[in-house]
Amino acid sequence: MRGFSFFERASRAFKQYPSLSKVLVLVSVSGAGLVAYSDSSSPHVTQAASEGDRKKKKVVVLGTGWAGTSFLKNIDASQYDVQVVSPRNYFAFTPLLPSVTCGTVEARSIVEPIRNIIKKKNGEIRFLEAECFKIDPTSKKVHCRSTQETDFEGKEEFIVDYDYLVVAMGARSNTFNTPGVVENCHFLKEIEDAQNIRRSVIDCFERANLPCLSDEERKKNLHFVVVGGGPTGVEFAAELNDFIEEDLGRLYPNVKDMVQITLLEAGDHILSMFDKRITSFAEEKFQRDGINVKLGSMVVKVTDKDISTKERSNGQISSVPYGMVVWSTGIGTRPVVSEFMQQVGQGNRRVLATDEWMRVLGCNNIYALGDCATINQRKVTEDIAAIFSKADKDNSGTLTVKELKEVVNDICERYPQVELYLKNKGMKNIVDLLKAGGGNGADELDIEKFKTILSQVDTQMKILPATAQVASQEGEYLANCFNRMEECEKNPEGPLRMRGSGRHKFHPFRYKHLGQFAPLGGEQAAAQLPGDWVSIGHSTQWLWYSVYASKQVSWRTRMLVVTDWTRRFIFGRDSSRI
Amino acid sequence: MRGFSFFERASRAFKQYPSLSKVLVLVSVSGAGLVAYSDSSSPHVTQAASEGDRKKKKVVVLGTGWAGTSFLKNIDASQYDVQVVSPRNYFAFTPLLPSVTCGTVEARSIVEPIRNIIKKKNGEIRFLEAECFKIDPTSKKVHCRSTQETDFEGKEEFIVDYDYLVVAMGARSNTFNTPGVVENCHFLKEIEDAQNIRRSVIDCFERANLPCLSDEERKKNLHFVVVGGGPTGVEFAAELNDFIEEDLGRLYPNVKDMVQITLLEAGDHILSMFDKRITSFAEEKFQRDGINVKLGSMVVKVTDKDISTKERSNGQISSVPYGMVVWSTGIGTRPVVSEFMQQVGQGNRRVLATDEWMRVLGCNNIYALGDCATINQRKVTEDIAAIFSKADKDNSGTLTVKELKEVVNDICERYPQVELYLKNKGMKNIVDLLKAGGGNGADELDIEKFKTILSQVDTQMKILPATAQVASQEGEYLANCFNRMEECEKNPEGPLRMRGSGRHKFHPFRYKHLGQFAPLGGEQAAAQLPGDWVSIGHSTQWLWYSVYASKQVSWRTRMLVVTDWTRRFIFGRDSSRI
Repeated sequence: MRGFSFFERASRAFKQYPSLSKVLVLVSVSGAGLVAYSDSSSPHVTQAASEGDRKKKKVVVLGTGWAGTSFLKNIDASQYDVQVVSPRNYFAFTPLLPSVTCGTVEARSIVEPIRNIIKKKNGEIRFLEAECFKIDPTSKKVHCRSTQETDFEGKEEFIVDYDYLVVAMGARSNTFNTPGVVENCHFLKEIEDAQNIRRSVIDCFERANLPCLSDEERKKNLHFVVVGGGPTGVEFAAELNDFIEEDLGRLYPNVKDMVQITLLEAGDHILSMFDKRITSFAEEKFQRDGINVKLGSMVVKVTDKDISTKERSNGQISSVPYGMVVWSTGIGTRPVVSEFMQQVGQGNRRVLATDEWMRVLGCNNIYALGDCATINQRKVTEDIAAIFSKADKDNSGTLTVKELKEVVNDICERYPQVELYLKNKGMKNIVDLLKAGGGNGADELDIEKFKTILSQVDTQMKILPATAQVASQEGEYLANCFNRMEECEKNPEGPLRMRGSGRHKFHPFRYKHLGQFAPLGGEQAAAQLPGDWVSIGHSTQWLWYSVYASKQVSWRTRMLVVTDWTRRFIFGRDSSRI
Repeated sequence: MRGFSFFERASRAFKQYPSLSKVLVLVSVSGAGLVAYSDSSSPHVTQAASEGDRKKKKVVVLGTGWAGTSFLKNIDASQYDVQVVSPRNYFAFTPLLPSVTCGTVEARSIVEPIRNIIKKKNGEIRFLEAECFKIDPTSKKVHCRSTQETDFEGKEEFIVDYDYLVVAMGARSNTFNTPGVVENCHFLKEIEDAQNIRRSVIDCFERANLPCLSDEERKKNLHFVVVGGGPTGVEFAAELNDFIEEDLGRLYPNVKDMVQITLLEAGDHILSMFDKRITSFAEEKFQRDGINVKLGSMVVKVTDKDISTKERSNGQISSVPYGMVVWSTGIGTRPVVSEFMQQVGQGNRRVLATDEWMRVLGCNNIYALGDCATINQRKVTEDIAAIFSKADKDNSGTLTVKELKEVVNDICERYPQVELYLKNKGMKNIVDLLKAGGGNGADELDIEKFKTILSQVDTQMKILPATAQVASQEGEYLANCFNRMEECEKNPEGPLRMRGSGRHKFHPFRYKHLGQFAPLGGEQAAAQLPGDWVSIGHSTQWLWYSVYASKQVSWRTRMLVVTDWTRRFIFGRDSSRI
């Protein structure tokens, strides 16, 4: 009966062996050359322990964002009984969210069902579409609630036990308690946000096109305000400008000239986390594009009609009417995480503090990663006595170069700020530092001198940014630790314990920065690559296309995103209000 | 600066000359062969009248569905001042709505901004995103209201003047006043409906996957009920079955066996408007697929948990719990159309009655087409005396064959039922009928004999179905009449006026049935083609693909729909709940 068996077979083969031929070639016309990408992220296969009578430990993962999904992709499900709880049954490729706001890519092109991701694993991972509203570290339980509105007759809440808990719930938008923001502004964190913004932009144009409005009212409706000059806000402003210039302008010719985009930034510059060359290029480009960039301008209130700002320079407060505001000023804590932080004695913090192995400080068997957590790097100055006594093997009260050389790798691994400090000072290793600090010819150090030498080291400590790249690497790292738990229990591979005996079980997490992009509209982008390389222009945009296509989580989304870009090149963006 | 000028130029060329190379070739593997399609629907270019001082007549079109859009695509905007009012700023290719419910195609792939369609016209057409809530035929005004929720300070309502009004507002779903339907059921008429159904299906599966539910509760959540065995209901049931079999089953293996699809039809058969061969094929296929088809089952009540049906055979009422109900039982009247019908003395009707030239009976300069209207074909029996006296040129009181031959074409054009009657009786023309009725050898007829002969003719009158095909042809027909208004004023081209003198200005509308499809799932479809040809099976599904791809309103949607189908073949449907 089924005469299309060829197709069926072919499609099934493709679905079952998605890694068959993972090579994507993007030919760049603008001169970026040929970028070939080969995806080799096959799951880390670990020998499954013979099950028999031994019961698997329960791992519960909260969240399906970058951190959670990266953990799930890498965990060996044959070793653990893994459950995921998240209100979103999909993973979203958030760096493309600003593109979704204007239809450059479609929302569905950047999401992948989490069940699709986990079913490829070496064992069963269960997914529950629910929101965790309470973590109980004492009895090792999480309390969850279905996000659906149907009447469950009291069965919408349930409890999940865990042996290990992985908290990867991300963050929410930070309003800094500015009045009126929640009620009147759009955020840009979730897929729904991007879809709402897209509809809202079209709404503004349709409203401005109705008869009976004065020109002033039309201008009000076409005043788009973006709050926050970070990468997301800047990219959204650029996308919106492109959308209007390339597409909406032709469809709404009567009101095109009334459009105004304003970008409000409280600091001195937009894209302040980037190199100065990128910042000034972006500011100049926006000026040429007619985007009104207001620096040093802090939003103090938003009503349903006006947005009020305070100039940092002179304290003057002014209000302007708007059609739409997008609020993108950084991240805040989710209520459930705040409550959990209270419980574990971290109540005065903004995000969960963990050690370098992602373990939440103050509790057992709970790990936190991604935007809801930050790694509290241990300070050298706090451990200086322990380090000294560990290094001073002969208990002579002084350190020789030989003694120091023996522990130098462990010190550098445990305290990465030491390495950074050396690099900044142009030194090769800690022995150079010792020589420099110890004075001429001295090859022995007492504890006072040791303290002096290392006293400046902690200034190099860096807090990792709340980016997809960090979260993704953290998830992969933690899954690999879980996969090698038994092995490393026997043969610890980490650095020496300075305050205790023996070695740490695992190497501490190390973030590897691969660079960051800032698309600026008009087929131009800026990129800050490792080693402070800076690249700006059209070819960088093509690099951006290649990298973002290659980083997609599945071949389905990769095809969709590339199709969306192609479609946009040929036909422009769609302005239907759906 | 802009190094990608090749791409820009290429894409601009494509956008500006969309008819450059309108040939789409779909290669069918299953044996349907090669179907090539060439789109030749270039706008009907009419010589624009020299404007000078003459003021253009105002044409207001209500609605952007099949009828309205087809009118807009064909109207010569240089002759008229055309305005469109519709709450939807896009045209939707509704025959693919059932595919959208399960993600076989994306919602955005089947919509095209109406501004994109009208900007290609030979002049300016204005679009207003608003809902018409009152038609005032006396003062030739329509009252409109913006559909947006923003506070307009009283400016959300406005009035539009017209000289000619084209009512193409479509219909809404008909609940037959069954209690609980509006509150608890999904409809399938708009894009939003399809999107809601898609989310709701995933919701049912996620709910059934939560812990703490009994198997009975899981089964309840996975009971999908479709009310109405028409083409839409049947196609949706088939799509849903495919979605579950091919995609959801693999992602939700634990609950797969608890799924049940029930199709309720009040009549004796599903797809009753199709040939019997198609009906029985569909019923048998659904039985094999495990879809529970309940014939003769009328829904009497829907609560938030149960749906109650009454068996037509024995009057027994029974209730079953459900997870989701889709209601698809035919069309009802929109409130604004009902009110308008009251005003023009059509209060006891279901849809607006028009004459064969789409003019609404009982008012001037108002036209209605599409699902909100129906053509009241004039009866021969009502006009029989007038026809007789028109034909009897010599006023002899009898008709000769010669006299009849002179008016036969006009009669057949004015009363298409005559032609249908002849065809059914196997006669070549009206003279045969006359001979058959007049008895042997008689070549003259008096009025009584004429009445007897034609008395059965009106039984052949057909009401046109409420389909996209009819609406689209009506829109094109009416636009062509408008375009040739002046020309035909001088040289009327229609049939003789039987009751008046002279000729009708235009030929009356004639519907040309091009066939109808019923996709049945599992890559099989049924088609009823003109001349009662019936085609069922896999090759018909490929024919369906070709026809639906070729009928898309723009090259953008065509590319998107074909990409969606390809994506579905390779990767399956997406089950992310967005």
